[in-house]
Amino acid sequence: MFQPLKESILGKALEKELLEIEITDFRDYTTQKQRHVDDTPYGGGAGMLLQAQPIFDALAATQAKAKSKGRVILLDPAGRKFDQKIAEELAKEDHLTFICGHYEGYDERIRTLVTDELSLGDYVLTGGELGAMVMIDATVRLLPEVLGNSESAQTDSFSTGLLEYPQYTRPADFRGMKVPEVLTSGNHQKIAEWRHKEALRRTYERRPDLLEDYPLTDQDRKWLAEFAAEKTDLAEK
Amino acid sequence: MFQPLKESILGKALEKELLEIEITDFRDYTTQKQRHVDDTPYGGGAGMLLQAQPIFDALAATQAKAKSKGRVILLDPAGRKFDQKIAEELAKEDHLTFICGHYEGYDERIRTLVTDELSLGDYVLTGGELGAMVMIDATVRLLPEVLGNSESAQTDSFSTGLLEYPQYTRPADFRGMKVPEVLTSGNHQKIAEWRHKEALRRTYERRPDLLEDYPLTDQDRKWLAEFAAEKTDLAEK
Repeated sequence: MFQPLKESILGKALEKELLEIEITDFRDYTTQKQRHVDDTPYGGGAGMLLQAQPIFDALAATQAKAKSKGRVILLDPAGRKFDQKIAEELAKEDHLTFICGHYEGYDERIRTLVTDELSLGDYVLTGGELGAMVMIDATVRLLPEVLGNSESAQTDSFSTGLLEYPQYTRPADFRGMKVPEVLTSGNHQKIAEWRHKEALRRTYERRPDLLEDYPLTDQDRKWLAEFAAEKTDLAEK
Repeated sequence: MFQPLKESILGKALEKELLEIEITDFRDYTTQKQRHVDDTPYGGGAGMLLQAQPIFDALAATQAKAKSKGRVILLDPAGRKFDQKIAEELAKEDHLTFICGHYEGYDERIRTLVTDELSLGDYVLTGGELGAMVMIDATVRLLPEVLGNSESAQTDSFSTGLLEYPQYTRPADFRGMKVPEVLTSGNHQKIAEWRHKEALRRTYERRPDLLEDYPLTDQDRKWLAEFAAEKTDLAEK
């Protein structure tokens, strides 16, 4: 299940020993004879719940081995929504534990062990493993030396507060679709201005909520008025 | 990288032939001699961009093989945020294509091919593969017969509009932490009422935004007033 952690950029970071990942199977810690770790909910209802005991004992064992307790993260759709800021926070920690169930839910008492309940987004998955891998990926790419080009992590969507501007690579004319002239002009100031304007436009069109926290300049406000006018023009046509 | 699709519930669904998954390596479609699929951005800047040609040709080939074009989804942090409603929409489709880059970004012209640009959430990953697997997992678990217990998919978080209520399984007393008495009372009406109230409480505390769209009853409003009063009491202490 955790194979993707060994691939690509994460795999390279592991090879370079920029981080260590340890996978613990909490089934190894159950005190039940049949290695069951789940049971039916009190009060009835569908689905199975992950029991408290295997998680309590597996976590105690891994924390005893590690130098620090660190943060203990429960993957749960009812948790705080994971975002780039949380990834930046987690990237500063020495030690993280992700508890991933593969069940309908968790016994409520498991929550007493955790420092963070996090959700990938407003959707439900069959298990927490993919969610943990997503959070690990988003976090690890922020560690120094993990990305080949150290600038990359700072200029992409969310890090600047705006969505990323449109980008183009070779060829300049692909099946009749051409690169905007400004990008091949060599005028760096014009390019920077165009990119900022288009990032602002994309954010305005798709994620206006992000603009609420964005420190707009006077020029930004003029552009936003321009985008709004274009929208009205389109609606009238 | 896509190993998790073969595991657990998704793997069982594949075995039961409830769905088919085909992985296409768009590197196989590049017309460049060195199998490069990325290049530097016009206008300068860090990172590499996925080129249009390999994606155009890979998609044309897979669509020629398939019976229908279906929806073509680009994984991009600047896309519409994936949620349970989108998963429900996608679960009704016969054929879906996920385009996953493993780069700084996409050549803008790739977007002309897609029906949906989707984002997992407000964070950036090293590639689109994990995102695609998350969307596939969330979607496939909604297909008939995929989950063992058909009730499960309908009662969990987001499907009801509220976060899930606290759940407990055996033992009734775990290291001094006891199951709420109502859940072992056998009184089904009281249990249902307690669960609804606690789901409302958890949603009120953690995700009040979800209540904006929720059809509240008079009893719900009374409970919400109760939660608000408790909060004020706590703040005053």
